[in-house]
Amino acid sequence: MEKFEIYVLGCGSAKPTMRHNPSSQIVNLRDKLFMIDCGEGTQLQMQRARLSFSRLNHIFLSHLHGDHTFGLMGLLSTLALSGRTAPMHVYAHAELERLLKPWLAFFCAGSTFEVVFHALPRGEASELIFEDRSLEVWTVPLRHRLPCCGFIFKEKPLLPHIRRDMIDFLQIPYYQINAIKQGAGWTTEEGTFYPHERLVTPAAPPRTYIYCTDTCFLPKNAELFHGADLLYHEATFGEEYAARAVETFHCTARQAAQMAQAAEVKRLMIGHFSSRYLDEQPLLEDAQQIFPATILAAEGLKVQL
Amino acid sequence: MEKFEIYVLGCGSAKPTMRHNPSSQIVNLRDKLFMIDCGEGTQLQMQRARLSFSRLNHIFLSHLHGDHTFGLMGLLSTLALSGRTAPMHVYAHAELERLLKPWLAFFCAGSTFEVVFHALPRGEASELIFEDRSLEVWTVPLRHRLPCCGFIFKEKPLLPHIRRDMIDFLQIPYYQINAIKQGAGWTTEEGTFYPHERLVTPAAPPRTYIYCTDTCFLPKNAELFHGADLLYHEATFGEEYAARAVETFHCTARQAAQMAQAAEVKRLMIGHFSSRYLDEQPLLEDAQQIFPATILAAEGLKVQL
Repeated sequence: MEKFEIYVLGCGSAKPTMRHNPSSQIVNLRDKLFMIDCGEGTQLQMQRARLSFSRLNHIFLSHLHGDHTFGLMGLLSTLALSGRTAPMHVYAHAELERLLKPWLAFFCAGSTFEVVFHALPRGEASELIFEDRSLEVWTVPLRHRLPCCGFIFKEKPLLPHIRRDMIDFLQIPYYQINAIKQGAGWTTEEGTFYPHERLVTPAAPPRTYIYCTDTCFLPKNAELFHGADLLYHEATFGEEYAARAVETFHCTARQAAQMAQAAEVKRLMIGHFSSRYLDEQPLLEDAQQIFPATILAAEGLKVQL
Repeated sequence: MEKFEIYVLGCGSAKPTMRHNPSSQIVNLRDKLFMIDCGEGTQLQMQRARLSFSRLNHIFLSHLHGDHTFGLMGLLSTLALSGRTAPMHVYAHAELERLLKPWLAFFCAGSTFEVVFHALPRGEASELIFEDRSLEVWTVPLRHRLPCCGFIFKEKPLLPHIRRDMIDFLQIPYYQINAIKQGAGWTTEEGTFYPHERLVTPAAPPRTYIYCTDTCFLPKNAELFHGADLLYHEATFGEEYAARAVETFHCTARQAAQMAQAAEVKRLMIGHFSSRYLDEQPLLEDAQQIFPATILAAEGLKVQL
């Protein structure tokens, strides 16, 4: 199975604490790293997780609150000091470019790499914002105190595996292999046709990861999240602060679980915990009552899809 | 003895590592806190040291390199989230105001406290930049790749202690005590004069702390540093990188010790260690050969003056 891993670098919320770093995650798809959010201290959390800066070329920021943003300048500065040359693509709401450019000009003068800004859409529809050979990244429209979006990391379908035994048995020439992977069958010299399905074993189904924070409860997104392998959903509060969650455009652990249940995802990871919790076990129990396949995010946690 | 303590929050250099946070210190004089430099992660280091944000009203930045600056925005944002109302005074080179103001306006919109910027002088003389009842802060002109200055924290002379036994014996009235503390003597009804010195015991001599980083070796500052109780001096490199130190406007551990020796300070603390050192013991040995009363800075270290 090709590598598809999520590293939690921080799962706290607005106020940094000694228990939680502010938001940041790394998606590792086949050793290409994608960062989501970059709170203060993220570059050090990457070092702790032994993740190489050189494999990181794309940073996605959900929204421009400090606990999702303040680590970016330090990270870019360290990359400049390291003599990086590859461009770094930053996907964020448009104001970031205006805010960050004067800092880059002053603190990273003479930097040997370019920061390429991509403005995130603000509409009500999910949009494709990144694509390569193996991955698509789509936005998730969220509702917070300022423009915010989640991200869907969607692995592209993999080609099936060639059945070496059949290739050898039928003496199929090497130049034909790629066509068979793509869907072709094979006709022997005697005229017997072997359909594609007999020559391959199917690839593992493509996997999907969804990152969904910060937002009020948005049941309509269940459709967008349907069947995902893993949903990271904010659970800033427990039920006792349900009113506070509404006021601040956040969710409770129970709402995160309701979303996972409605979307029929395989697993749920909750995070973005309010600093008032010294123990998130009650949040986990709240969620598991509705959606048993729930885990708590934690700094240093690595989840395999 | 009145409290005068130095907390080391970070003593690394440009690249953050798992061993050292970037530069930051807290000077605690009689429970008023003064911050010097504010690298990324400083607010968390303050929490770790159990230092209260509410006692901090003055932040001094030696220069505008990221490893001395990038923690400031996060710290100010956390103070805004905490509903702080007291102004925060920031002493830094003038560009900081231009860089920070748009970030404050965006990330701390609606903040309930004011950030007051004080531009540091750029001249070749030491200047008084802060003064209250018990403290003066003076700049130290340094030479780095951009404008930089050190800081002298100079306790004001303390008043002598009244000798309670003499006051009782001579039946000196209460309203006279303050005059005696300030230097007056006392004449009894019988006409016997008791000079000031017989009525008091002298206060502890005022103490001085000097913070000196980042800079090339500047022997002329020895005069300014003369007799200080503690000198914190950068020692980015060992002797094997003496040429690199010159190139980058930094000092070696040996130069830090030469400065301490020439200035006849009581103690030397070296820091701002290059990330290439996994063990600073050789730097300590370099320095101690010249100036034995040297210690290594370390995160979490508290030094009493």
